[in-house]
Amino acid sequence: MPQNDPHSIGIVETQYFTFAGSPDEMPLECGRKLGPITLAYETYGVLNEAKDNAILILHALSGDAHAAGYHAGDDKPGWWDIMIGPGKGFDTNRFFIICSNVIGGCKGSSGPGSANPQTGRSYGLSFPIVTIADMVNAQKRLVEHLGIKQLFCVAGGSMGGMQVLQWATAHPEMVRLAIPIATTSRLSAQAIAFDEVGRQAIQADPDWMQGDYYGKTIPHRGLSIARMIGHITYLSDQSMHQKFGRKLQNKQEYGYDFVTDFQVESYLRYKGDSFVKRFDANSYLYISKAMDYFDLTPPNGKLKDAFATTRANFLVISFSSDWLFPTYQSKEIVTALRQNNLNVIFTDIKTDYGHDAFLLEAGELTRLISNFLLHSHQQQQK
Amino acid sequence: MPQNDPHSIGIVETQYFTFAGSPDEMPLECGRKLGPITLAYETYGVLNEAKDNAILILHALSGDAHAAGYHAGDDKPGWWDIMIGPGKGFDTNRFFIICSNVIGGCKGSSGPGSANPQTGRSYGLSFPIVTIADMVNAQKRLVEHLGIKQLFCVAGGSMGGMQVLQWATAHPEMVRLAIPIATTSRLSAQAIAFDEVGRQAIQADPDWMQGDYYGKTIPHRGLSIARMIGHITYLSDQSMHQKFGRKLQNKQEYGYDFVTDFQVESYLRYKGDSFVKRFDANSYLYISKAMDYFDLTPPNGKLKDAFATTRANFLVISFSSDWLFPTYQSKEIVTALRQNNLNVIFTDIKTDYGHDAFLLEAGELTRLISNFLLHSHQQQQK
Repeated sequence: MPQNDPHSIGIVETQYFTFAGSPDEMPLECGRKLGPITLAYETYGVLNEAKDNAILILHALSGDAHAAGYHAGDDKPGWWDIMIGPGKGFDTNRFFIICSNVIGGCKGSSGPGSANPQTGRSYGLSFPIVTIADMVNAQKRLVEHLGIKQLFCVAGGSMGGMQVLQWATAHPEMVRLAIPIATTSRLSAQAIAFDEVGRQAIQADPDWMQGDYYGKTIPHRGLSIARMIGHITYLSDQSMHQKFGRKLQNKQEYGYDFVTDFQVESYLRYKGDSFVKRFDANSYLYISKAMDYFDLTPPNGKLKDAFATTRANFLVISFSSDWLFPTYQSKEIVTALRQNNLNVIFTDIKTDYGHDAFLLEAGELTRLISNFLLHSHQQQQK
Repeated sequence: MPQNDPHSIGIVETQYFTFAGSPDEMPLECGRKLGPITLAYETYGVLNEAKDNAILILHALSGDAHAAGYHAGDDKPGWWDIMIGPGKGFDTNRFFIICSNVIGGCKGSSGPGSANPQTGRSYGLSFPIVTIADMVNAQKRLVEHLGIKQLFCVAGGSMGGMQVLQWATAHPEMVRLAIPIATTSRLSAQAIAFDEVGRQAIQADPDWMQGDYYGKTIPHRGLSIARMIGHITYLSDQSMHQKFGRKLQNKQEYGYDFVTDFQVESYLRYKGDSFVKRFDANSYLYISKAMDYFDLTPPNGKLKDAFATTRANFLVISFSSDWLFPTYQSKEIVTALRQNNLNVIFTDIKTDYGHDAFLLEAGELTRLISNFLLHSHQQQQK
């Protein structure tokens, strides 16, 4: 519980920032415009007078603005509470932490489930396709709104890492340190394939109704299947073996039916069902598509060209058993950064947790990140 | 075309063997009984007088009895035509090749789509759960029907390899040589998880109707999604990268919509759609479940115990990029066989083709298998 934990940031509240008051103010990569845009965000710690101690935390596909601390009445803290708080890896005694929900999401920021101000009804599929660059451009407005000219650090795992890379390349003057974790400069064909099957499952659900299901029955079976597929890719063969193996669920022998036999089956169903309660199917379509589209390598260019104007110092972290965004993809990023003579620390953490390790490997991540931040912080203060 | 190819077995026909005339003659592992049972099968080459040159080929999840040659009017040969024919790895000039469709299937053998003789209607979900052991027990009846007391060899890839292992352990006196390829003694939690998500996709399709869809609309979207999931696991990250990478389908730029963008997406949809035309959704449920249940290790025992009475000589083949049934699982089999002092040749073929390599790596497979067969054949004739 928050009141008993000196390393918890305690009770926090989500805030909202709305900008682009005219209905078409922010141009998007797809060629359309979006506005007004609302971003849900949270902040932890105190912004110093120089406004140079801000760290922007970027979330993954199913994440939200609530990265740390507790919402009043909640038993569970934010999604990266192991990393953010007093004395933690992202130390709120030193740093001012910001985390905002991406556009296209369903946790308070503008997305397909939001009301279209022009019609008063949910956008549904009329919401424009957004990209990682669009997400970052919206965050930039929030950062500027908070009066911050340069972020001390941008950090995140998985899709959060893509946003880190996008920040460091698109807005180099605003990023001092960058920590992309368990991420990639572009999805492999295999990762796109998994995303597409998940989208197919959602769209195959008759309750999806071309995305126009708000206020009606939600496409829970389709979204649940999409989540189950995703979840398998977040774990490793080893971690699933250790956690489940071939253990049966509440029985000694096979059921010889199509009801759950193995623990891994009921676990996946549980994961799928619980996801449906907290996530919007259309947001799953939009955000997974944004990940598929992300590709830092310029057309007819090389990855190193993407970092030509980048200035940040990097801490790149991958996980040895991550097969969704494997270590070799982080190494490609590291090589491209070094080809631009940028300062890079790279660590491949040995772990069985797979892609999800960025949410679990608190010890190693804390050690690496706090050292990286404090070293740079001390240099800044000299 | 068959008439132009001296290495093709030419035109072949599927035959049918029906046994267990009483309605409940063959006991199944689940405790229920099944009968009459029909097996669809094909044979290639000539059974010699001693009836000691028979090779039983065992198919994978979506395979059938049509392993080689051409059905009249067809442009495409059987599913393992690269391996079976005059002068090929399984040389029909020397050997009598048998391949039968598994029970539970949908290609002529008794399965959920067959008419229940007691009702005249398709079994649907009233078809009993069948296991790999049940499939093999039915094949044993066919082999005995053909007058064969001992098979010179049993061979197959993926689920076919499980049947090879089952044959060699359950009926050791009937198996002289065994060639399990790209297989496992039991599925990992990850492989079970993928199977379960595929089954969930089928059962989530409203046209599935608890399996009672025969003569009505088939659950094509659910089955298509199940196949897409499976197909990703049959390929490797490397082969998908080489085949598709991030290439777009018929366009130069992103579509910024949820219609197909990447070639890998349209490829998967095509694979899903074409599978629906040739496969039954209920059979997918039954056969994938049979694979999940397969576990050679006895309760409270070790894998080596499974091979205590096995006599066959083994050629075990795995593929370096197979992540569905990875090389380490073949190595576990090899270790268990050697702990029983059985003769084992083991090869891990270096390939980027992933699990599907057993259908593609004709050169290496032919070299390994023809050497293994001919060496043993010559010893037999001495």
